[in-house]
Amino acid sequence: MSTSWSRWLGAEAAAREDAGLTRRLRSRPVDDPTIDLAGNDYLGLARSPVVKQAAADAALAWGAGAGASRLVTGTLEVHTDLEDEFAARLGQPSALVLSTGYHANLAVVTALADRSTRVISDAHIHASLVDGTRLSRARLTVVPHSDIGAVADGLASATAAGERTVVLAESVYSVLGDAAPLTELAELCEQHDALLVVDEAHGLGVHGPGLVASLGLAGHPHVVVTVTLSKALGSQGGAVLGPTALREHLVNRARPFIFDTGLAPASAAGALAALRELTARPELAAVVRDRVRELAEALGVAVPAGAVLSVPMSSPGAAVAAQQTAAERGLYIGCFRPPSVPDGISRLRITANAAIPAHAWARAVATLVDLVEEHR
Amino acid sequence: MSTSWSRWLGAEAAAREDAGLTRRLRSRPVDDPTIDLAGNDYLGLARSPVVKQAAADAALAWGAGAGASRLVTGTLEVHTDLEDEFAARLGQPSALVLSTGYHANLAVVTALADRSTRVISDAHIHASLVDGTRLSRARLTVVPHSDIGAVADGLASATAAGERTVVLAESVYSVLGDAAPLTELAELCEQHDALLVVDEAHGLGVHGPGLVASLGLAGHPHVVVTVTLSKALGSQGGAVLGPTALREHLVNRARPFIFDTGLAPASAAGALAALRELTARPELAAVVRDRVRELAEALGVAVPAGAVLSVPMSSPGAAVAAQQTAAERGLYIGCFRPPSVPDGISRLRITANAAIPAHAWARAVATLVDLVEEHR
Repeated sequence: MSTSWSRWLGAEAAAREDAGLTRRLRSRPVDDPTIDLAGNDYLGLARSPVVKQAAADAALAWGAGAGASRLVTGTLEVHTDLEDEFAARLGQPSALVLSTGYHANLAVVTALADRSTRVISDAHIHASLVDGTRLSRARLTVVPHSDIGAVADGLASATAAGERTVVLAESVYSVLGDAAPLTELAELCEQHDALLVVDEAHGLGVHGPGLVASLGLAGHPHVVVTVTLSKALGSQGGAVLGPTALREHLVNRARPFIFDTGLAPASAAGALAALRELTARPELAAVVRDRVRELAEALGVAVPAGAVLSVPMSSPGAAVAAQQTAAERGLYIGCFRPPSVPDGISRLRITANAAIPAHAWARAVATLVDLVEEHR
Repeated sequence: MSTSWSRWLGAEAAAREDAGLTRRLRSRPVDDPTIDLAGNDYLGLARSPVVKQAAADAALAWGAGAGASRLVTGTLEVHTDLEDEFAARLGQPSALVLSTGYHANLAVVTALADRSTRVISDAHIHASLVDGTRLSRARLTVVPHSDIGAVADGLASATAAGERTVVLAESVYSVLGDAAPLTELAELCEQHDALLVVDEAHGLGVHGPGLVASLGLAGHPHVVVTVTLSKALGSQGGAVLGPTALREHLVNRARPFIFDTGLAPASAAGALAALRELTARPELAAVVRDRVRELAEALGVAVPAGAVLSVPMSSPGAAVAAQQTAAERGLYIGCFRPPSVPDGISRLRITANAAIPAHAWARAVATLVDLVEEHR
């Protein structure tokens, strides 16, 4: 490689290694016996027979890919069926499906915000919303996590300046697993004529149609929603839900929609089947919430709003050691270290899952209690 | 919707309508009889039996989704098999698969470039590379399309300033269908110790392993490659190919890799099967190149380097009318209007396809000659 670039890559790698922050990929075999308590397939729908079959059938019927941008010839009925189902189940006027959840967030922020717009962003929002805001070049106010007063101050100052304003939040935050004060945020946005964008990545499925719908905020004139198809829906893709005028705007202006191939048919069909399963089997959401509560109580940490349990550890090294011990004992658990954590605190990240058989779940809880004790 | 936002969306929609630039989605049924000369499935592999079956089998074996970020538990053997195949077929030391081609381009630019980096970008590069550069906050020099002299000037000035430099190009450009002067660009990058990033989105498949490999530039110390899995490979996803040190850097630093769910197993397996088909059936690339030459000669336009034929039209209205006539006669063709064109000239965009039966292709060519004559 070129001298300056290889020297730079080498220095970056050495700095990561010195800090104990080098990440390496581990490849899983198809018959991996280890129990996955790190992934986001909270309801186990990715591998449920009806979802797998729907994905396989769609690949055979439609082909492996959509073949073009959705704006050209890449909009298939499986996409519009999924959009209709999303709108109906989540109580929204319309939905637009994109090829990843990341794209959905980039799309909504970049298509709404420009240099003259104010974006008020919670400090813990997902990288894709951060990147969307950077791309939009909007005027940015980052507020402390779930600090309603700071949001109110930001909105008041934006209103005084006559700025169109977007407030960014997640219904359930990924790292700490806590819920946003959505009702209060929606009220503030209504008072200041602003728009609240809520990412339901970790709320959809674990809370049925998501927290926005559960709180009666679906269709609220000041609230739009993004979702991912790759967590509780067990597939791949993303969607933006809200007024039809917003959907039409995204179709015409959102670069990550316009300049990308449509979502693969198998992924769209898999998510559609999962969305129907979610409605047909409400016990799945109940099971995963029961399990996360059980595990939180066993580990002596706060019960989170979503299916993600966050266990603070004393150091990146302690977190990694606990993760390794878990793997030796048949459990994959997650480990968040800088720079993936908003506050610099290393954590175990353990996700509850509704699809693990009851006896295996009980054993997993006991194992986790032991190893957190050993390493914390 | 909130007053200020609904007023703004309404004004934006009215402006599009007045300019004749409103885009609407058209949903295709599974048994659509219209011939697709607008998509990017140049070799017809999306619907080839072996590719469809591989995608379906993977959905059944692995589930509909990868379930997590590749860094957590979302790296499956189907991903690493695909990466090994990419590296072998394209003659590169390593490959990293991402969930879209857009992500691959965002990833490579944002992980390499920062405020202290110089990016020299061809004026016609894809939106995803433009967005990657914006996100990186690199110092940007946009050079006129395929202007080697301007690239040389930019490199000389970056060298003088001591800036690490990335040059962005596509092997075959999407709108005009022309090839980049890759050999000259690689030489310039070598002279100035810069790195050339080549997007093979429209070169891979149509030129076998791509133009970089065909020109003997694979593994060149100053050249890295991005590809999409959703064009000639008929699936979904993207990849970055180059030195293993670059792959390791992306795994650790590229936000669109780290903070996104791994590519759906069906898409990874579909692309893997397509990559093998590409090698097993070299006649596919020959057919598509023959067809694009035949069509270019019939329409009296220059023969493009890729499978995309660009036919300039007198106005956005003429382009849209020709596109509608084509649809009435059983052909989907593309239509590029502002703001999707780099030079403001509206065009028909017609793609050759190796999978259309010979008699249907001959009829399509005759139909296209007639309707371009009528509307140009």
